[in-house]
Amino acid sequence: MPLRTTPLRRRSARVVDLDVLNQRLGYFARRLQVWIFQDFISRLSAIDISPAQFSVLVVIGANEGLSQAELAGTLGIERARLVRLLHRLEQRALIQRLPSLADGRRHALRLTRDGQRVLARAKALSGQHEAGLMKRLGAERYRLLLEALREL
Amino acid sequence: MPLRTTPLRRRSARVVDLDVLNQRLGYFARRLQVWIFQDFISRLSAIDISPAQFSVLVVIGANEGLSQAELAGTLGIERARLVRLLHRLEQRALIQRLPSLADGRRHALRLTRDGQRVLARAKALSGQHEAGLMKRLGAERYRLLLEALREL
Repeated sequence: MPLRTTPLRRRSARVVDLDVLNQRLGYFARRLQVWIFQDFISRLSAIDISPAQFSVLVVIGANEGLSQAELAGTLGIERARLVRLLHRLEQRALIQRLPSLADGRRHALRLTRDGQRVLARAKALSGQHEAGLMKRLGAERYRLLLEALREL
Repeated sequence: MPLRTTPLRRRSARVVDLDVLNQRLGYFARRLQVWIFQDFISRLSAIDISPAQFSVLVVIGANEGLSQAELAGTLGIERARLVRLLHRLEQRALIQRLPSLADGRRHALRLTRDGQRVLARAKALSGQHEAGLMKRLGAERYRLLLEALREL
């Protein structure tokens, strides 16, 4: 249960006043994201797949032939960062960049057979991560948060 | 209205399948956090204060004499990263690190007069950022999200 070892608030000897941070959605959104990512990273450490790598593999796997620009636009990843991410996944032989049929300058992305295997494992592990989150947050609060955030 | 220029989902020529990402709270928490931070950074660019620097200044301002360990524990910032953050704020003469009265090895943190001025300006700008968020998300959804995340 990795979440047990990384509580959202650590204990502190002193009661610390958060002042206006108590009225800043960004502060709490960041805390939630860091907390979730720590658990995700720990659960997927055996296959060394980061949250960003996971989202890239999932979207390539579900949309074969997608271009880098489409992938960047979908995930909201900065172009330069995506290039580094894809390069690393290509070095690990998890993805391939092929010239697109439609346009020789575009690169169509696809998973290799190893990429498919790693993605299947990553999906299973991330499903366990998600089940842990739901348990930890409570099914009702989990559902409320997921629906509210998905709507945005 | 910086938010108008950075929509949460960019348009894409192709409808892209998010597959299991639709069932991952961490994916949407990250999108929300990045979206909020982009607006925050843009609104506070005139005074060059990042979200992390802002949270550090707010908490020091509201809890004079706080130690680095207490600050790290409160904000959930990794120790090495906090040291870099504090060093930068000290270089800009916004904070001071003083030997604690209670324990000579501890550093008690406090704002300088410049730090107080910058913090007051940062609070005002971040209040505008927050009002923009509330308008953009709708008051009801904003309240729901803030309360749900604050509870965690």
